[in-house]
Amino acid sequence: MKRKAGAFVGICLAALLLVGCGKSNNSSSSGSNGTTTTKKTDKFQITGDAGSDQYRGVIENGRYRVSKSRGVGVQQDANNMLNLKNFDIGMTDISKKFFSTQSYIFQEGQYLSTSTVEKWLGRQSKDNPDGLNPVDNGNGSNRNPMYVQQIGEQDYMKNNNGKLTLAGMTIGIGMNQKDYYQKQQYGPTFTQSIPHDKMVAQGKADAQKILERVRKIDGVPNNIPIVIAMFEQAPNDSLVGGSFYAYAVSNNGTKLGDWKDLDIKNVVFPATSTNSVPNSNDEHSFENFKDKIQNFFPNLAGVTAQAQYDGNTLKEMNVNVTTQFYSETEIISFTQYVAQAAQSYLPNKIPINIQILGSDGKTQAFLSRNAGEGKFESHILTGN
Amino acid sequence: MKRKAGAFVGICLAALLLVGCGKSNNSSSSGSNGTTTTKKTDKFQITGDAGSDQYRGVIENGRYRVSKSRGVGVQQDANNMLNLKNFDIGMTDISKKFFSTQSYIFQEGQYLSTSTVEKWLGRQSKDNPDGLNPVDNGNGSNRNPMYVQQIGEQDYMKNNNGKLTLAGMTIGIGMNQKDYYQKQQYGPTFTQSIPHDKMVAQGKADAQKILERVRKIDGVPNNIPIVIAMFEQAPNDSLVGGSFYAYAVSNNGTKLGDWKDLDIKNVVFPATSTNSVPNSNDEHSFENFKDKIQNFFPNLAGVTAQAQYDGNTLKEMNVNVTTQFYSETEIISFTQYVAQAAQSYLPNKIPINIQILGSDGKTQAFLSRNAGEGKFESHILTGN
Repeated sequence: MKRKAGAFVGICLAALLLVGCGKSNNSSSSGSNGTTTTKKTDKFQITGDAGSDQYRGVIENGRYRVSKSRGVGVQQDANNMLNLKNFDIGMTDISKKFFSTQSYIFQEGQYLSTSTVEKWLGRQSKDNPDGLNPVDNGNGSNRNPMYVQQIGEQDYMKNNNGKLTLAGMTIGIGMNQKDYYQKQQYGPTFTQSIPHDKMVAQGKADAQKILERVRKIDGVPNNIPIVIAMFEQAPNDSLVGGSFYAYAVSNNGTKLGDWKDLDIKNVVFPATSTNSVPNSNDEHSFENFKDKIQNFFPNLAGVTAQAQYDGNTLKEMNVNVTTQFYSETEIISFTQYVAQAAQSYLPNKIPINIQILGSDGKTQAFLSRNAGEGKFESHILTGN
Repeated sequence: MKRKAGAFVGICLAALLLVGCGKSNNSSSSGSNGTTTTKKTDKFQITGDAGSDQYRGVIENGRYRVSKSRGVGVQQDANNMLNLKNFDIGMTDISKKFFSTQSYIFQEGQYLSTSTVEKWLGRQSKDNPDGLNPVDNGNGSNRNPMYVQQIGEQDYMKNNNGKLTLAGMTIGIGMNQKDYYQKQQYGPTFTQSIPHDKMVAQGKADAQKILERVRKIDGVPNNIPIVIAMFEQAPNDSLVGGSFYAYAVSNNGTKLGDWKDLDIKNVVFPATSTNSVPNSNDEHSFENFKDKIQNFFPNLAGVTAQAQYDGNTLKEMNVNVTTQFYSETEIISFTQYVAQAAQSYLPNKIPINIQILGSDGKTQAFLSRNAGEGKFESHILTGN
């Protein structure tokens, strides 16, 4: 998973932005290495650069084409916003397996509306026949759990002679491992665990239903690939977000191909007894880094990290260092020191981002290293 | 003023960090282009890289050698922390005119203690004969204002065969343009303006006194250059911090050389009637950028910038963009769009940093361009 957006260029794109503004300097005439092939129409423009490993996005009349179900995710994941973050990024990552960032343009989901998604996420009932969750049978010991927590849609477009055409779609389905409920409003919250195999089976059935419904939506062709990606929501009290555990693709109609399992784990450093890390070498590396960093000032620095594993292989690490600074020169010196310590101690070969935060929680400096690079690049942030 | 810390390497430095940790991987054996000449002693280590345009700092027994008057600045500038930021960075910038980042090592001030600085910043009295501010004559219409608001010290060291030696010093003196006072505790705050020429004259007299006192301090040689830099504090309600307006150097003893005036102005964009900007072209550029950005989402984005001018020449710009995001893909698309708009509209040839903040005030993405570069480099931040 690559978070670094890279550099964005493209004469065409910069030119698009310049439309309607004769006074500004066109600074984009040099240094372009973009391979943008899009053309301006009255209908849409595109963010980003085709040469990047990030998708370009769709702008319509100078405004981003936001999701038709915008905000549903925020609402569904209000108790652990890291779920939403991982859900969005993970869907994009899986999509890259099928839709290359060079050929496809990303569009926020335009076919599932807020009301549709909310209906589907509800319980099945006379009033809501499309509810994917089982009928309400009360809050007794045999309570039917809420299995499906969120549904996301991403559209992958092609530019056919200036006309954006839907060429692929990814549907993410977030499944609960915990069912939270209240017996009365404002009462205490009860928790029911959902067995993993039950969650997986239920998810497969829901995936098939959703695929069939999506194929029927006006504007969704029968013959574009639709990827269905299954996400396991992390518990509300988890320090990490959930992760995708499987995906399947339907190339045509309502037939879904074989399920492919994923073994992605999100973890937090430092490891604890209830929160272990797949690889103890990484744990040692982090602990050494932390020891070196946290005593730099007389006041102790907090050092934590979120990391993602594919199986036992560390894929990326996002480090947060929080301390109290008494001057700008302390920020600069600390950033230099963190860059050295990170290079010496943190695992090689993976992309690492480090944020240095002041005691007010604001980012003071930012360090990053791409996969395969030795050095960290540092930025001291100001004006915050 | 260059804020980008650049990349930090150096086999020697990485090796220093590795002392006492046999298990970690030495990832520094490749890619080194540092020109570090320091050697390890039992006494000190150094942060950073001699090849950088930032000073390296002093580490003692694994801990940063903090200022002997650490925290006094935070206390003195509590009503406008931007003063402190500009004070620290500005002192370093002026120091670079005299002490090259290649040859000199930065050390937080070790010769003026908290108690000394607090005494000097106080009013002159029987109990405090060293107070630089005039005697208390009450809070009537002829009240003696508080002229001196803060005093900072930076030491510039040379490494002589593994021994750090004081080779230069910069003293910053922060002068008030406004004198704030209360007639009774917890009462309303009154303000008295200090005429500019009076402030400058008083500052020159204080500079001479401070130079004489500093030369007498044990460990401060008579023949090292001491730079005295004069800072005008911004008012408490200012959206920008103050700036340095003059400096002079004493190469020997207590004789201070000619004063050299500076014309540094810190401004905020968008400009307002009470807060103008020296160059209207820059104002247009910023407004175009802002217009393009703020309507990207249905919800309006806030777009502001802090910039620094030397005379009428824009030197650098720090942009803050704040908006509400509903998904990670929105953050990515917005960052791409901001990169394009910044390249098209913002002034060329100066270093620009852009922070993209969520509605919770946390940094979500960061873009930067060095002076002379065309493209912005983007980073999507996670794990925050």
